[in-house]
Amino acid sequence: MSLNIEKANSIAVERMMSARPMLKGVARALDVIPGMQENLLLHAGPPIEWARMSGPLRGAIIGALLFEGLAKTETQASAMAERGEVKFEPCHQHGAVGPMAGVISASMKVYVVENVEGGNKSFSNLNEGYGKVLRYGAYSEDVLKKLRWMNDTLGPILANALTLSGGIDLRTLIAEALQMGDEGHNRNKAGSLLYLKLLAPLIARDVKDSAVESEVLQFLGDNALSVLNPVMAACKVMADAAQNVEGSTLVTTMARNGTDFGIRVSGLGEAQWFTAPAEIPVGLFFSGYSQSKYFTIPQLDFRGSPTGIDIRKVVELGIPPRINTGIAHKKPGIGQVGAGLVRPPMAIFEQALVAFAEKYGL
Amino acid sequence: MSLNIEKANSIAVERMMSARPMLKGVARALDVIPGMQENLLLHAGPPIEWARMSGPLRGAIIGALLFEGLAKTETQASAMAERGEVKFEPCHQHGAVGPMAGVISASMKVYVVENVEGGNKSFSNLNEGYGKVLRYGAYSEDVLKKLRWMNDTLGPILANALTLSGGIDLRTLIAEALQMGDEGHNRNKAGSLLYLKLLAPLIARDVKDSAVESEVLQFLGDNALSVLNPVMAACKVMADAAQNVEGSTLVTTMARNGTDFGIRVSGLGEAQWFTAPAEIPVGLFFSGYSQSKYFTIPQLDFRGSPTGIDIRKVVELGIPPRINTGIAHKKPGIGQVGAGLVRPPMAIFEQALVAFAEKYGL
Repeated sequence: MSLNIEKANSIAVERMMSARPMLKGVARALDVIPGMQENLLLHAGPPIEWARMSGPLRGAIIGALLFEGLAKTETQASAMAERGEVKFEPCHQHGAVGPMAGVISASMKVYVVENVEGGNKSFSNLNEGYGKVLRYGAYSEDVLKKLRWMNDTLGPILANALTLSGGIDLRTLIAEALQMGDEGHNRNKAGSLLYLKLLAPLIARDVKDSAVESEVLQFLGDNALSVLNPVMAACKVMADAAQNVEGSTLVTTMARNGTDFGIRVSGLGEAQWFTAPAEIPVGLFFSGYSQSKYFTIPQLDFRGSPTGIDIRKVVELGIPPRINTGIAHKKPGIGQVGAGLVRPPMAIFEQALVAFAEKYGL
Repeated sequence: MSLNIEKANSIAVERMMSARPMLKGVARALDVIPGMQENLLLHAGPPIEWARMSGPLRGAIIGALLFEGLAKTETQASAMAERGEVKFEPCHQHGAVGPMAGVISASMKVYVVENVEGGNKSFSNLNEGYGKVLRYGAYSEDVLKKLRWMNDTLGPILANALTLSGGIDLRTLIAEALQMGDEGHNRNKAGSLLYLKLLAPLIARDVKDSAVESEVLQFLGDNALSVLNPVMAACKVMADAAQNVEGSTLVTTMARNGTDFGIRVSGLGEAQWFTAPAEIPVGLFFSGYSQSKYFTIPQLDFRGSPTGIDIRKVVELGIPPRINTGIAHKKPGIGQVGAGLVRPPMAIFEQALVAFAEKYGL
């Protein structure tokens, strides 16, 4: 059986690394995300009910309900959520992903990324920039105003530019950004400039209103996180390509919702989450399963980045992977208060390993 | 006397590092470069006559004469140069600088950089990109066509954008680009993207023709050397600020013309060049005189870059500074064939030290 696991893991890693994420377009969530509904809100991390949601996630939910016009006030939005009038499901169960609270509602514009080798797709919302933003739980009128501008002005312009582009090769973009000092999550400065460079000539061809065009180019250029969401969708489409490989112990999802940390495992199917309360210990970086031939790190003598996390290795070595994240204020409506590193709880890897042993009769 | 030298060198370094290079505009060389004339061509490195010029420099001279309409054919251009009908002077004697052959003619558009702390100015031509280009000695019709497009279309658009910008702080741009892996000469990838980011919203406001605008944004974004010439002018304006400090042994110019390598020394005045034939040995990097507080290098644990080259130290240690450069084919008309490192001849530092000792009676 152990030989089969190795083979299954090799297949999973190979699928992950041969996935070729192309940024194909921008469209309305309801039109493109499988299973999306008007009264459904997608969120970060594993499944969670309103009662157990953290402040920032609640704030983002409230903001999304206001943005959609489903609620008129914060109180009304909270009441709707409490009464179960709105449904919550993880982004990850819909091929979607978003930074921090990760909330995606039906009328939001989302990026569409396609794995042109495997055919699977992923989706992510547009990046709002820094400061008071929905993804950190802020929902004041200026937050909503910016979201409307992004949806009505920025979104269609990006959609047209991406159509003109014929698709942007995100694997190439990420590989190049890593050579320029990005790590691809908290630091996306180079990647966002490369993204701007690719889009600017296309935006110029498409947009006739000089003031609007200038505003869009300024917004994309000033926001060093512009490319974060396409990059996250690229990672998602690659990780999803490794999902459902029978017998594989590879982790295909690691995500938090502000309360719980959850993982999913390739060989255990996408419906099964292993969760535990999020914790904040210190630890070493996990060196990973194999090294990426595409994503090399100049500061580490061009060592390939780790590829593939095996639940067996995590439990055996007692070293969970490290997460690089922003930090939201615990109350809804405030926003980002920092950035840092966090480790997932060991318990979820142990639970997953037990489930794996049971499923495969080990 | 030795105490005075130390003090003079401190003043020179201080002037160099407190210089604040701002990219202020783009204008016609004849209108802004002091002493520019219609039949004068500025070139890289120390003074040199036509007979001793290298192939690439001759090629660039021929190209510039064709570009200016002063000659109709290559043969005619060479004959004019040979008969002395055109004058040659170093860029460096006119506050100007340009990559490789560095040829600047009267009607070329040039960047204007001002040291807003000291008031001195510098100038540099616009970057043509890679491949067959004038600065590497190419002068075919496609080279001239691109130069005309740059002068007539790109130049005025950059001029307007820079006017709208109120000036671009090149010290900040360079400091940021170094954090993203640039070294500022052969690698200007991040700096050029930062430059594009600053210009794009301004270009969008100014240019009404979508096709032209798109072409300009594409040209600037695709050329990872777009910002090279403003960066060189920034270095020039900083080095010039350290010129003419009585008693200083600091090198203020190091430049080659394809035949000779020349230096100038702060305390010996700007008219005096020390030259010797260029050579190509191997050696160690020179650690420099002091470390820059603005320009730090992430790969070297954020060590400051070397600032100030003292002719005494070069001769005493026997270690000349290292030059990072492109390599042109030796025949005119061909262009770039490589890139690499080169050291200046020790002889010029020795000559300069002798001249210094004589001038100051040491």
